[in-house]
Amino acid sequence: MKNCIVAQSGGPTAVINSSFIGVLDQCLEDKSFDTVYAGLNGIEGILKERLVNLSSIPYEELKGLKYTPSSGLGSCRYKMKDYINDDSEYKELFNIFNKYHIEAFFYIGGNDSMDTVRALSEYTKLNNIPVQIIGIPKTIDNDLMETDHTPGFGSASKFIATTILESYLDSSVYINNGIFIVETMGRDTGWLTASAALAKINGKQVCDFIYLPEVAFNKEKFVEDVNKRFKAQNQVFIVASEGLRGENNEFIAESTSGATHDKFGHAQLGGVCTSLKNLIIENKITTRVKTLELGVTQRSAMHCISKTDLEEAYELGRKAVEYAGNGSTGFVVGIKRLQNNPYKYETILMNPIKVANHIKYFPKTWITKENNFVTDAAVDYISPLIQGTPELPTENGLPKYAILKR
Amino acid sequence: MKNCIVAQSGGPTAVINSSFIGVLDQCLEDKSFDTVYAGLNGIEGILKERLVNLSSIPYEELKGLKYTPSSGLGSCRYKMKDYINDDSEYKELFNIFNKYHIEAFFYIGGNDSMDTVRALSEYTKLNNIPVQIIGIPKTIDNDLMETDHTPGFGSASKFIATTILESYLDSSVYINNGIFIVETMGRDTGWLTASAALAKINGKQVCDFIYLPEVAFNKEKFVEDVNKRFKAQNQVFIVASEGLRGENNEFIAESTSGATHDKFGHAQLGGVCTSLKNLIIENKITTRVKTLELGVTQRSAMHCISKTDLEEAYELGRKAVEYAGNGSTGFVVGIKRLQNNPYKYETILMNPIKVANHIKYFPKTWITKENNFVTDAAVDYISPLIQGTPELPTENGLPKYAILKR
Repeated sequence: MKNCIVAQSGGPTAVINSSFIGVLDQCLEDKSFDTVYAGLNGIEGILKERLVNLSSIPYEELKGLKYTPSSGLGSCRYKMKDYINDDSEYKELFNIFNKYHIEAFFYIGGNDSMDTVRALSEYTKLNNIPVQIIGIPKTIDNDLMETDHTPGFGSASKFIATTILESYLDSSVYINNGIFIVETMGRDTGWLTASAALAKINGKQVCDFIYLPEVAFNKEKFVEDVNKRFKAQNQVFIVASEGLRGENNEFIAESTSGATHDKFGHAQLGGVCTSLKNLIIENKITTRVKTLELGVTQRSAMHCISKTDLEEAYELGRKAVEYAGNGSTGFVVGIKRLQNNPYKYETILMNPIKVANHIKYFPKTWITKENNFVTDAAVDYISPLIQGTPELPTENGLPKYAILKR
Repeated sequence: MKNCIVAQSGGPTAVINSSFIGVLDQCLEDKSFDTVYAGLNGIEGILKERLVNLSSIPYEELKGLKYTPSSGLGSCRYKMKDYINDDSEYKELFNIFNKYHIEAFFYIGGNDSMDTVRALSEYTKLNNIPVQIIGIPKTIDNDLMETDHTPGFGSASKFIATTILESYLDSSVYINNGIFIVETMGRDTGWLTASAALAKINGKQVCDFIYLPEVAFNKEKFVEDVNKRFKAQNQVFIVASEGLRGENNEFIAESTSGATHDKFGHAQLGGVCTSLKNLIIENKITTRVKTLELGVTQRSAMHCISKTDLEEAYELGRKAVEYAGNGSTGFVVGIKRLQNNPYKYETILMNPIKVANHIKYFPKTWITKENNFVTDAAVDYISPLIQGTPELPTENGLPKYAILKR
């Protein structure tokens, strides 16, 4: 009896389930494991023995998850203790694995989850535990080191660029248009925000300014830039990351200096877009300012995913099983870009120590000197990742999404 | 020389340009007019003589607008004076029409625009002016009388239901989930909000509660309902209209009683979802509350439109020209639903007096007795309108949208 387990962790993406189905399909195809278990709610659920025997569920019921966004196996934000100080959780975990004859653990997740992969890998080696530990990356933030990019990012980029095109058209219809501000996710890095530069009509970028957290946000420069552009074209389209920080590393979203007051005298607070809106109004550029916080739609908009991203997410799941079949353990599957035109990549094995607990920032050389846009290098990097539109199953005019019965 | 003019007015929709291309295509096909002009920015722009000769632009450059959201001809929110008191604007307008040999005016718009159609129709009759006045309805709000529904509504519904499915999955991944609130447009009517009831997985609705502006919102009942459901399933999914009003007709979004305070001591204000979030936190149901304001994406998400809606919008444009060819004037083209399975409709002529300055409310009989959901009748009504996914032109992995050169 040789079984394996697969689980998901961290924030959802539109294609994280494709990686899961990739793992499952490869297991079924090469018959490397007798039973495939799903661990519900990541490591947190596994520690509570919340396991589902996937081999006992008809494949027909599972396959729809490939085209279902968000973490179909449930997720967690659980940080295991450092095994050097206290390895009780590790013992519990491997007791559970032992009970179910689990010899391989496939963990699909972001930065924190890859740190769990690192810790478990180290622990198995130190204690000669015969369980393979394999990480499969996912995050819309694209902030993992070593891999060219992460599954989930391409689809989020595509949705952001698409929505920006549409919001731009929506904001351009009147004789007197105003200023429109879109806020994207990206607490530490500007990859998602940079995707705004892909939004073009007739080859011309629709955004006027793009602000990333990698460079300090200068309010005076912002007001000057926006004022000048508004006077020139009576309309300004701005995209900003939720994680924008000022010169003293303070979050712009929490900065209250620009707060306006409503009719009850209450200060209006909100995200970055509200702060920027307040700056514009306070500096009397115009009062016609609209904002759009993309929120969770960025990471869950399966209806607007990239086929390239979907296929890569799936392929990384399959490859993880294939590599495990060769006896590899203690690794994270990554993507190495081989060329851009046409786009080609290959999968690689990465050391979890190099992946976890680091942040891959958006390169400063890809930000313009004015600190208010990104260069063509950014567009060339992101563009191949948003290509293609997969056929998704539908029902009654809507996407047909699947839920794992628990 | 016999020319016509087409213009757009009011808030954009994803398919308002399809009606415009419908007008253009029918004009080109039946050669009923020598030249087709576009009036830029609706009646406001026409009064400034902002006309574009569409017949001088290669069709190749225009046809992409059929698959481009938002008002490609520009829009306005301009209310003409009552001609009984002051008809100077009317004289100006018909002088401009006379100058360009314009004998028919096709106006694509919502409630206010149909009132312009009414006023111009009356004025032409009273003064024997040989210009036909034809209205083509559009509004995502679906609040026009006489027509079964309005072009634009089906696509907005489809986007709302799709995004709700995806947000629901996103909000369901943890062991301890929270409460998720989606805010839709709909200042006066609940048609858009009711679309949430279409969001089902395995036949089961994902929303727990749906709140419409047609019934007074009761805070105590809300807190009771949400609290009970949260205790039962550790997760509640709520959809509310921006236009929710309380027992005294006050907007819930402006109600400050439930406001929480941030770390600076400022009251947190916002839309309806912020007010509901504050109610939940204030009543100690949970602090885990996430919100999503769909904003302008609802009316501009071409990438997620309904084929049925697109085709109807286009067909109404064509029919408007066809009816005008029969000599009809002073009417608005409408939709009469013939049957649901399979869905069939026919176009009708409507009297602008019956369309303008009225509001078609969501039927109270389609709201559950508890005032917190809609009935199957609502689902049956909306469902046919969201069917089908058109093939849209793409470029570099994104929708290829067109802009009219001015």
